[in-house]
Amino acid sequence: MSKDGILFDRIAFIGIGLIGSSLALSARKTNSASHITVCDINKAHRDKALELGICDTATGDFIEAVKDADLVVICTPPGVCGDAAAAFAPGLKEGAIVSDVGSVKQAIIHDVSQHLPDGIHFVPAHPIAGTEHSGPEAGFAELFDKRWLILTPPAGTDEEAVKKVSTLWERAGSTIEVMDAQHHDMVLAITSHLPHLIAFTIVGTADDLGDHLKQEVIKFSASGFRDFTRIAASDPVMWRDVFLNNKEAVLEILQRFSEDLTFLQRAIRWGEGDKLEELFTRTREIRRDIIEANQA
Amino acid sequence: MSKDGILFDRIAFIGIGLIGSSLALSARKTNSASHITVCDINKAHRDKALELGICDTATGDFIEAVKDADLVVICTPPGVCGDAAAAFAPGLKEGAIVSDVGSVKQAIIHDVSQHLPDGIHFVPAHPIAGTEHSGPEAGFAELFDKRWLILTPPAGTDEEAVKKVSTLWERAGSTIEVMDAQHHDMVLAITSHLPHLIAFTIVGTADDLGDHLKQEVIKFSASGFRDFTRIAASDPVMWRDVFLNNKEAVLEILQRFSEDLTFLQRAIRWGEGDKLEELFTRTREIRRDIIEANQA
Repeated sequence: MSKDGILFDRIAFIGIGLIGSSLALSARKTNSASHITVCDINKAHRDKALELGICDTATGDFIEAVKDADLVVICTPPGVCGDAAAAFAPGLKEGAIVSDVGSVKQAIIHDVSQHLPDGIHFVPAHPIAGTEHSGPEAGFAELFDKRWLILTPPAGTDEEAVKKVSTLWERAGSTIEVMDAQHHDMVLAITSHLPHLIAFTIVGTADDLGDHLKQEVIKFSASGFRDFTRIAASDPVMWRDVFLNNKEAVLEILQRFSEDLTFLQRAIRWGEGDKLEELFTRTREIRRDIIEANQA
Repeated sequence: MSKDGILFDRIAFIGIGLIGSSLALSARKTNSASHITVCDINKAHRDKALELGICDTATGDFIEAVKDADLVVICTPPGVCGDAAAAFAPGLKEGAIVSDVGSVKQAIIHDVSQHLPDGIHFVPAHPIAGTEHSGPEAGFAELFDKRWLILTPPAGTDEEAVKKVSTLWERAGSTIEVMDAQHHDMVLAITSHLPHLIAFTIVGTADDLGDHLKQEVIKFSASGFRDFTRIAASDPVMWRDVFLNNKEAVLEILQRFSEDLTFLQRAIRWGEGDKLEELFTRTREIRRDIIEANQA
């Protein structure tokens, strides 16, 4: 498949934050669409998207947005993907492809699918990319370059639709991985959701300290804390929805983490240095594995 | 004080890992010592230090190492600073300055001071700098540039000794902060020790997963997990000693963290999105404060 050229006559982005604007800019750069329209209930975001040349047209009307669209990409927070689908579904063109970019897949597939009429192809997607910034002004076409794009198409999803969505992401520089939605939600609970929950927690713990101590935490944050604050600066609404919509997997992995932390707490209290050293030596190996996997 | 020129005729480094070798290389670069000797019980480290030109002489004999030294810098893991002091104390020159680079201060001050004869000046120090790499080959003269160096001199410590140690670190590019040892241990428990404990734990939790899942965690680590693995790759022995030697402060802050994590766990279980969003919005502010404090 050529690296550029029209792939969809018309693409509609529902919600235009960091991910939506970045994909739109990439689609523009690779001439993948002859017309890009944006639908966002936030007028400031619509105006910014037009101002930045992210789209050709922008509207607050869901039906108008998806009219004649060959591809509709839902880029709203995970918790409202279903509401968005319910709002634009009546305006979908026969045979249109609907996709999303949500960090959780089972819940979104459940929430969105029920509103889509027959003849519409839903291709759930999740780009493993992002920054701690949000909004259309945070987007850039290279965000997905050399990053993973996970597709979780339900059994029976139209092959051609999956191929076209894959191509759009490949043009953005992503490497495609297809997996089962339930498996995706467990893997991401470990690699992304729990790390974010932990980071939000520890930064919150520091925020609750007395003002004097808090200022010193900020002053000396380079000693480790700072790495957590970047993660804990991620979009609050998006992450609220991630935890509420991947509850089972997050609670399961969080339970394991808590048990492990209690084990270390006890080892510290009783001065069991061998248990600490043994774990710290194992964790160092994982870093080596990741560096070898060219992830670091 | 001039940016270079002889500050100490002879400096002895006890233990030559990442921190010791970096300070030695900086001392060389700024001509702060006419002779640098290294004492390490690990012959491979001694040979490497000589090979890399980190020191003029190297020995495995503590008494020989500190003979005629004007400054002795203990760069061993925190847990053995006291043993090292006991070993070299008999060989110290009258009026010599002893310092260290440990991440915990109260325990090291207790362990070291008791072995030092009268007329020796102990100036406890802690550079807020490091990498996940260890050993003399990991050192570099710029490690401390634009980083904090915390001094925790007990009341009555010789002013001139404090000034000379400060100057050595200022030449390495550090900004000096003087604080009480107990306060240091609490601030670092929050900014450094707890973040490291959490990172070691979550990476360990992932390591305990089934092999298939573990490989996927490594594969998709860019989604947040990877930031933790770098911290969790830090020196196992050094960190074991940090936790065992700053037990009270670490357990206190860990208790607060655990309560906060349980609060979020409950909010997720009961679908209380407002509690999650409220915290995630607060934590984003802390990141802004840190960026404003020019730490990020």
